[in-house]
Amino acid sequence: MAKPGSSKIPPPKGTRDLYPEDVLRQRYITEAWRRVSIRHGFDEIAGPTFEMLELYKKKSGEGIVSELFSFRRAGGDDDYALRPEFTPTLARMYAEKANSLPNPCKWFTAGPYFRAEKPQRGRLREFMQWNCDVMGGEAVQSDTDAFSVLLELSNELGLSSGDIRLRLNNKQLLISLLDYSGVISSKIDDAIALIDRRSKLSTAEFREQASSLKLDITRFDERANFVESYVRGTTADLLNAQEPNAKSHGTLQGVHVANLAYVHNEAAKRQLTNYVDIDASIARGLAYYTGTVFELIADGERAVAGGGRYDNLIELFGGPPTPAVGFGMGDVVLGLLLEDKGLMPEGPELADAVSQKPASVRPEAFVIANEAGEPHIEPLLAELRRGKEREGFDGKPWDSARYEVEPMHARRSYKSTKNIGKLLGDARRQHAKFAVIIESDEAAKVENLDTREELGVFALDKVGAVLAERL
Amino acid sequence: MAKPGSSKIPPPKGTRDLYPEDVLRQRYITEAWRRVSIRHGFDEIAGPTFEMLELYKKKSGEGIVSELFSFRRAGGDDDYALRPEFTPTLARMYAEKANSLPNPCKWFTAGPYFRAEKPQRGRLREFMQWNCDVMGGEAVQSDTDAFSVLLELSNELGLSSGDIRLRLNNKQLLISLLDYSGVISSKIDDAIALIDRRSKLSTAEFREQASSLKLDITRFDERANFVESYVRGTTADLLNAQEPNAKSHGTLQGVHVANLAYVHNEAAKRQLTNYVDIDASIARGLAYYTGTVFELIADGERAVAGGGRYDNLIELFGGPPTPAVGFGMGDVVLGLLLEDKGLMPEGPELADAVSQKPASVRPEAFVIANEAGEPHIEPLLAELRRGKEREGFDGKPWDSARYEVEPMHARRSYKSTKNIGKLLGDARRQHAKFAVIIESDEAAKVENLDTREELGVFALDKVGAVLAERL
Repeated sequence: MAKPGSSKIPPPKGTRDLYPEDVLRQRYITEAWRRVSIRHGFDEIAGPTFEMLELYKKKSGEGIVSELFSFRRAGGDDDYALRPEFTPTLARMYAEKANSLPNPCKWFTAGPYFRAEKPQRGRLREFMQWNCDVMGGEAVQSDTDAFSVLLELSNELGLSSGDIRLRLNNKQLLISLLDYSGVISSKIDDAIALIDRRSKLSTAEFREQASSLKLDITRFDERANFVESYVRGTTADLLNAQEPNAKSHGTLQGVHVANLAYVHNEAAKRQLTNYVDIDASIARGLAYYTGTVFELIADGERAVAGGGRYDNLIELFGGPPTPAVGFGMGDVVLGLLLEDKGLMPEGPELADAVSQKPASVRPEAFVIANEAGEPHIEPLLAELRRGKEREGFDGKPWDSARYEVEPMHARRSYKSTKNIGKLLGDARRQHAKFAVIIESDEAAKVENLDTREELGVFALDKVGAVLAERL
Repeated sequence: MAKPGSSKIPPPKGTRDLYPEDVLRQRYITEAWRRVSIRHGFDEIAGPTFEMLELYKKKSGEGIVSELFSFRRAGGDDDYALRPEFTPTLARMYAEKANSLPNPCKWFTAGPYFRAEKPQRGRLREFMQWNCDVMGGEAVQSDTDAFSVLLELSNELGLSSGDIRLRLNNKQLLISLLDYSGVISSKIDDAIALIDRRSKLSTAEFREQASSLKLDITRFDERANFVESYVRGTTADLLNAQEPNAKSHGTLQGVHVANLAYVHNEAAKRQLTNYVDIDASIARGLAYYTGTVFELIADGERAVAGGGRYDNLIELFGGPPTPAVGFGMGDVVLGLLLEDKGLMPEGPELADAVSQKPASVRPEAFVIANEAGEPHIEPLLAELRRGKEREGFDGKPWDSARYEVEPMHARRSYKSTKNIGKLLGDARRQHAKFAVIIESDEAAKVENLDTREELGVFALDKVGAVLAERL
């Protein structure tokens, strides 16, 4: 049939031609990314698909070049590269406008990324990636804001705490544990790399390499176990009472243990700890992490996402010194996981799932509090953002009968003032639809900010239903 | 503040860092593209962001290379290029699965594209582009399906027929007019290029170049004017009666005139001719167009989109001989146009506009007919897809009060059978929610395909409201 001279030219190795059903499956994922990000108060940004090659060398050194698709324009003399990750672009964008951005600044982005590696199952040369980052803010809260959205995404897609776990650690804590276990400071990076590879090595190989780094692995494991159970078992009250003791726990270790325990407690406020494993031995490889690190692991082995705190990167890209935390998640491994678990809809259910109303870009609920209400802000935010599943619901996550109270876009003020008038001003500046003012341990006043009408005072666990009815 | 050694690396020239408000403005456009495409029965596909360089050389020759960002992977020996357009990818994708695809096959895609040109206002090196293509089908209908969606997009965004015009022509007609005006066949391509550039040349320059091609421009203009007013003035009935005469109008000219008149009449059925100018002198440059060509022009000068019929391309890429028609539209010129016209929302209105429910991927109405109802299919489809504006509405296009009947996703069967049972089977296979069965000039039966419940028989102009109430 084909004309002489015609021939088929395939797509480049490791890239995808997506037919209609494939696009719907990809959108099932990317729309969930977007929906969950927006509900949690992240604003969407986007950067170029390619960047100056220099940008990646700056962060990762010359070695990165072989892992990139790099190029010049015919007749031009600038070297470019297809982006392998978003963080350098993010750092530039933040640095460029740092003075006029909110604190904390919560951004997300989703788009195509590229790596020039050998393609394999779960790893392609072009893939979609979701990034969420929090610049500034109070560190414990920002760390938790970052991984919360990852866990809420898992919940949104029907992944249970049996399917997926968040491994949580603090890189400084790991360093102090290695120091405590005999590793000298010039060998710490090698020891971190070894610990990261532990599950891929035989016991004998691992012991031999540990020994060459003077790493006393028995001492390390005992201490790590102790720290893990201490963090898991420590409530916020206990932590506040014990902090002076924690700080004195040998060298700096106690501070890092306390930091991890605070983050774990912040997750508890949001009812997320059933998904969390404290794992004092993960480091997430990358040299630029400076504090909290985390990875989302499916079925005990597949890494679905990972991230952490990187307090020095924005300055490296010419911005003001800015603490920051974030993560990335690709669509390929997640898509395979959902299919394996029977959590990817098909046919008309898939079509309906990608046709649902997206999250409202305008905040629907803006939660503020006086002194008494303050401890209830994060728990209420988490509840509003997650919605309330119908009692006894046992359908699939895309079932339209799933929610008794639909999840909503809820924000809070990060201002330190307790002046309700000023906090309401913050809600209005962000074009929120309703203000929720928590004035005691039990109840909150709800106000329609468009009409300035007060709807009344409601028990905290009724606020979601009251709002959902009016949205 | 910045550390020594840190420095700012800007985004590559001609690319964009999009901050939250910028992303919302871009989404205002891309979501409208998606919404309008889906309502008109187009399925979304996607391809790689880069392709084998060979793919573009095949279509456009070696000359294209200087306009591309082309590259190799370090250590690899394949030449790649960032995609400058979608058509070669589309042709490959169609060719790969041609045997199992519907006829016609209606696809759309939206994503980033690249050109290595000097950036200027309205032209960037990286931009978003929307493509819609119809492979197969009956040519007059498929041509109209392609540009209809472009006009419905304009209407959706609030662009009136005073803001924007569709210039419509047939390339074979232009060739026959040039032939009629003295140009020999070896000079036709040069003459087309000259006609395309006419508005950019002085009268003297144009006349001199026309004369060197032996183009009698007076004869050309007179004939073009005659053809244009003939096409504008010809109704479907007249055309059907006159066709034998039209065909005898000197050489092949009459056939091409008739073809253009049929397309114009098909647009009239969909109430779109108020947006259409017949312009016998446009050719849209590209050598691969073979029939109908069109361009969307704002304020008489800015080209916002363009496309046409390309019946030989899919075969060139190794597929079966397949007639096809399509267009591309970029986000940059369209965004500037909407801002100039005050048609780009801001602040909370922008946030609400991008938060609206997307089009339903499942068809909401599937329109079928017996012999008597057949002529009403396309007019009813157009009405359902466009929705009904509230009487006296004079707000902006994003005003939630705009519609009395919301636009919906409406499809038809392209099968030639008039057997209602078989046509209903087609509706069910496409997971349509409601079937609309036109059985006379006046009324249609509506059936809920999920519940198999018959809702009754309704006047044609009431069908939209009946469906909207139940969706």
